[in-house]
Amino acid sequence: MAKVGIICGSESDLPKMKEAAEVLEQFGATPEVVVASAHRAPTLVHEWASTAADRGIEVIIAGAGMAAALPGVVAAATPLPVIGVPLKGSSALEGVDALYSIVQMPPGVPVATVAIDGAKNAAYLAVSILGLKHPTYREQMIAHKEQMARKAREAYERSLGQA
Amino acid sequence: MAKVGIICGSESDLPKMKEAAEVLEQFGATPEVVVASAHRAPTLVHEWASTAADRGIEVIIAGAGMAAALPGVVAAATPLPVIGVPLKGSSALEGVDALYSIVQMPPGVPVATVAIDGAKNAAYLAVSILGLKHPTYREQMIAHKEQMARKAREAYERSLGQA
Amino acid sequence: MAKVGIICGSESDLPKMKEAAEVLEQFGATPEVVVASAHRAPTLVHEWASTAADRGIEVIIAGAGMAAALPGVVAAATPLPVIGVPLKGSSALEGVDALYSIVQMPPGVPVATVAIDGAKNAAYLAVSILGLKHPTYREQMIAHKEQMARKAREAYERSLGQA
Amino acid sequence: MAKVGIICGSESDLPKMKEAAEVLEQFGATPEVVVASAHRAPTLVHEWASTAADRGIEVIIAGAGMAAALPGVVAAATPLPVIGVPLKGSSALEGVDALYSIVQMPPGVPVATVAIDGAKNAAYLAVSILGLKHPTYREQMIAHKEQMARKAREAYERSLGQA
Amino acid sequence: MAKVGIICGSESDLPKMKEAAEVLEQFGATPEVVVASAHRAPTLVHEWASTAADRGIEVIIAGAGMAAALPGVVAAATPLPVIGVPLKGSSALEGVDALYSIVQMPPGVPVATVAIDGAKNAAYLAVSILGLKHPTYREQMIAHKEQMARKAREAYERSLGQA
Amino acid sequence: MAKVGIICGSESDLPKMKEAAEVLEQFGATPEVVVASAHRAPTLVHEWASTAADRGIEVIIAGAGMAAALPGVVAAATPLPVIGVPLKGSSALEGVDALYSIVQMPPGVPVATVAIDGAKNAAYLAVSILGLKHPTYREQMIAHKEQMARKAREAYERSLGQA
Amino acid sequence: MAKVGIICGSESDLPKMKEAAEVLEQFGATPEVVVASAHRAPTLVHEWASTAADRGIEVIIAGAGMAAALPGVVAAATPLPVIGVPLKGSSALEGVDALYSIVQMPPGVPVATVAIDGAKNAAYLAVSILGLKHPTYREQMIAHKEQMARKAREAYERSLGQA
Amino acid sequence: MAKVGIICGSESDLPKMKEAAEVLEQFGATPEVVVASAHRAPTLVHEWASTAADRGIEVIIAGAGMAAALPGVVAAATPLPVIGVPLKGSSALEGVDALYSIVQMPPGVPVATVAIDGAKNAAYLAVSILGLKHPTYREQMIAHKEQMARKAREAYERSLGQA
Repeated sequence: MAKVGIICGSESDLPKMKEAAEVLEQFGATPEVVVASAHRAPTLVHEWASTAADRGIEVIIAGAGMAAALPGVVAAATPLPVIGVPLKGSSALEGVDALYSIVQMPPGVPVATVAIDGAKNAAYLAVSILGLKHPTYREQMIAHKEQMARKAREAYERSLGQA
Repeated sequence: MAKVGIICGSESDLPKMKEAAEVLEQFGATPEVVVASAHRAPTLVHEWASTAADRGIEVIIAGAGMAAALPGVVAAATPLPVIGVPLKGSSALEGVDALYSIVQMPPGVPVATVAIDGAKNAAYLAVSILGLKHPTYREQMIAHKEQMARKAREAYERSLGQA
Repeated sequence: MAKVGIICGSESDLPKMKEAAEVLEQFGATPEVVVASAHRAPTLVHEWASTAADRGIEVIIAGAGMAAALPGVVAAATPLPVIGVPLKGSSALEGVDALYSIVQMPPGVPVATVAIDGAKNAAYLAVSILGLKHPTYREQMIAHKEQMARKAREAYERSLGQA
Repeated sequence: MAKVGIICGSESDLPKMKEAAEVLEQFGATPEVVVASAHRAPTLVHEWASTAADRGIEVIIAGAGMAAALPGVVAAATPLPVIGVPLKGSSALEGVDALYSIVQMPPGVPVATVAIDGAKNAAYLAVSILGLKHPTYREQMIAHKEQMARKAREAYERSLGQA
Repeated sequence: MAKVGIICGSESDLPKMKEAAEVLEQFGATPEVVVASAHRAPTLVHEWASTAADRGIEVIIAGAGMAAALPGVVAAATPLPVIGVPLKGSSALEGVDALYSIVQMPPGVPVATVAIDGAKNAAYLAVSILGLKHPTYREQMIAHKEQMARKAREAYERSLGQA
Repeated sequence: MAKVGIICGSESDLPKMKEAAEVLEQFGATPEVVVASAHRAPTLVHEWASTAADRGIEVIIAGAGMAAALPGVVAAATPLPVIGVPLKGSSALEGVDALYSIVQMPPGVPVATVAIDGAKNAAYLAVSILGLKHPTYREQMIAHKEQMARKAREAYERSLGQA
Repeated sequence: MAKVGIICGSESDLPKMKEAAEVLEQFGATPEVVVASAHRAPTLVHEWASTAADRGIEVIIAGAGMAAALPGVVAAATPLPVIGVPLKGSSALEGVDALYSIVQMPPGVPVATVAIDGAKNAAYLAVSILGLKHPTYREQMIAHKEQMARKAREAYERSLGQA
Repeated sequence: MAKVGIICGSESDLPKMKEAAEVLEQFGATPEVVVASAHRAPTLVHEWASTAADRGIEVIIAGAGMAAALPGVVAAATPLPVIGVPLKGSSALEGVDALYSIVQMPPGVPVATVAIDGAKNAAYLAVSILGLKHPTYREQMIAHKEQMARKAREAYERSLGQA
């Protein structure tokens, strides 16, 4: 079972980030969910991120809202791929602030950004990355895509039936 | 040597996307650069993307401007991780259109989005992903981060010297 | 009775897209409403779109939210005119993402874009297009505009009466 | 030979709108290009638009910048399909003003909006609409899509050859 | 008693525009409130606007949402000053579309634009314009500013008292 | 000859604001152009604005860039109608900052806002306001609109001739 | 006990601005909260701001929504540091108007801008500024950061415990 | 002579940030300018920021572009007031990304944000803050404001002379 680190800056972000954890568990991966703020506890974040690889974590998902420095700060401290989730939260800018803060990283330190509040997609992306190393995730990702296609075809059939 | 697919929709996108290829080559990975438009040659794109894994490609980088459907169309056709690069090109919206078209993917089909015109970062992200499977890329990514830190420290020393 | 294809990516989009179907039915056109996701079931979408003309469909209305690739993917696969409806849905970007993803198509593959959540207008536009071939829709469109003008004049009279 | 009306508000818009005329001529359609401002000569615009169908025009392309009322004003005066082209021109808002002014039409009076400065796509859209009535444009549109796919495949082959 | 024309495109805009009428009545001006849509009843709007001066109207307030052509269309048809009120209504773009459509008028045909949903301010602006000709409105505007200052000072005193 | 005050915050704004002065002079109005910064010389601005009516000024045009407080500060100090011109200048936000700062005035203190860099339109608006009191400006505004329509018709004729 | 001036334009802004007052009181500073509108009572604002230093105020916090001239007007009238809080209020632009109006100040008259509705952070910033002069605030700010880090670590521990 | 730390992430940011240093030197303050990237050399930044107060620095100015984490990361590591300068640089988003990344800080860790590319204003703000403790900066700031007012009055006189 592959380990995926999930980090967010505040306990109020947990319900959204747990959507990612649930998807990972459906695929048989083990999420390690922690709350650690880049702005309030920078040393803690650096410590967690720089030792993540040593603890066996293979991919990191970092969610943050507003100025949203967390994903970039984590990416600076680890050689692992870091997926960033811009959180809308209660920001007046409705997540555009977090999106720009996460996606516009300078050369050399990328963050793999997904949609605003796209925690589930962060997990699917993590699984596709785990698939490089672990055949089970590659196979499950193929199965996931087939199932999506099957469900989409069922919705298509239902829509035809309603005509 | 790991293979990374690089795809963009038009030959005018090639100079930007070749920045990604150069970074990959510096890390000893093999880029496969192709031009194939999601809107002009959808069958070709589907064919290329759905067989990428079979050809030994492990990560895909897809660059596109304006409506920028290419990264999502590619992601729909492969279980591989797909990195999207929003291209500014000559769009009146200066790449915001491409950014929104690439990052706001629906649940189940993520695209790992980097900054507008962030082709280099797409390559660094690909290397960090390759690091899951190939120890050489993990080691090189660690070395890359150390080198960045060293260069940053040198710039710091130079700036102190100017004071 | 002319056939108009209406396609959207998810069953949650149906209530909005059925507004288009209702307008079409008022004009005596036959909507064929289907659910098929460009990202989850790309083959199905391609199949539906590339055979639409053969099934007698004359205009296509495609609604999508967020990254909103569907209208462009459909337009790539058919010589028919394709009308795109950006859907606001629950996107944090409130439909601006879908608008940019649909309207900013590259040269050669246009999508006729209407307002965010403008499904009704997509239907009126389809009727005006059908009017090229079928005199009944041209006549009905003229009558529709006269009726709008009449209702507008009645509202004007009412407003004068309130003064 | 089908007639397509092309209208814009100022002579400075002509170079951009003539891109549409050229595409139409390549398809053997006859563009009628006129300059008439909705805000400076509203009566003239109304006269031109309300008689367009009688003069044999089958589709109208209207380009405008900034407040960009022209496409909507034309659409209000004709039962023909009206395609709107938001022009960037020298607006400080770089065409976003024109895009919003054209695409956000109220229910009942749609404008088929294309990309900012997307005059060529307006012409391709007009051809696909003409295809409903005139088999030659349908056939040419199919040939156009095949040619785009062929050129895209050639670009693909060239890109493979460079690898 | 000076007459001020107030026009909006739909009965659903009336509650907001009546805020302007109420302010005008407080100043002893006579509002003439009408509903007439630029896109649904262009002839009616042109007729109303081009005869407004003859009916004794001295200033016009025009409110509109979304593509918001009404204020500009009215301004094109009258030598009177026209004040535009961008209406938020239920637009997904929350009035930014209307703001851009109203304020970005081309040279020669200005619209005096106020804040989104700023119907009250449109009325205050109308009163300040009426003040050029009618001493009573100039005096009342001076009194209004003094009263605002007095109320502001009272709020200031109250806030001091709470400290 | 009616007097119109024109105020801007910096000498670098003068070339743009003199476009307004030129239009006013064409109509036989007398512009009083001054440079006075709301943020650097608030007392001077207050003094100038609060005595403008006493000096015979009938309308004020205020241009400003970036935070653009000047038009509102002027409007707070005078019962005269104040027209605001958002200046693009060299702002990174390209005049959107100035537009929002000028148009979004609170209830009770309106500023009649024109397009970004729309100094000419500010002058046309001033003339239409002067027309309330001075028949010559009303007549000239009517003539101006007729001339615009005539020139627009000439451009229309020219465009027809080119077909 | 150091004095911090808190000013906002309307009594409806008070609940938000009192969040700043509460934080200041927790640090043992004395807030002087006043309501005074830059647009409705400019003289009062100028008077209050230009005498603030004389009354012993050391830092000023100014909150405003929409056109949000207040912070800049205050900054123009005092040598004290002025912190600006853009207020979302009920603006259709959701505080972006206020943010741009406050942060984009011209050279020479800065306003220290915090997040939209960031009244609490304005207070923390004020405390860090007071720390220059008063050792107690420096010490308390250090303690505040330690406490934040401690609470962040506790949240981290709790999150670990849930795994 | 008070010390002000100036930090930016890259040597390409130095020319802009030196504008701040020059202003500080005009006021007799001592800038300590360093280059240190939050994403490439996080440990170095943390070290520099957390020891700044001990080295006698009293205010920090941090400039950054794109994701712009630097000002927040510095603010997290010091009890000193931190002023953030969003840099436009060559970002496709023209500094809006940096503005949102810097100004939208979470509660407890404020950054005093100035205009995009507003390095000079950062220095003026620093001087006003230094004025709390050092009477010389307070006096100089008063003199600076008087000089600005004097220059503004001279520009006003010149503009009057041109009339």
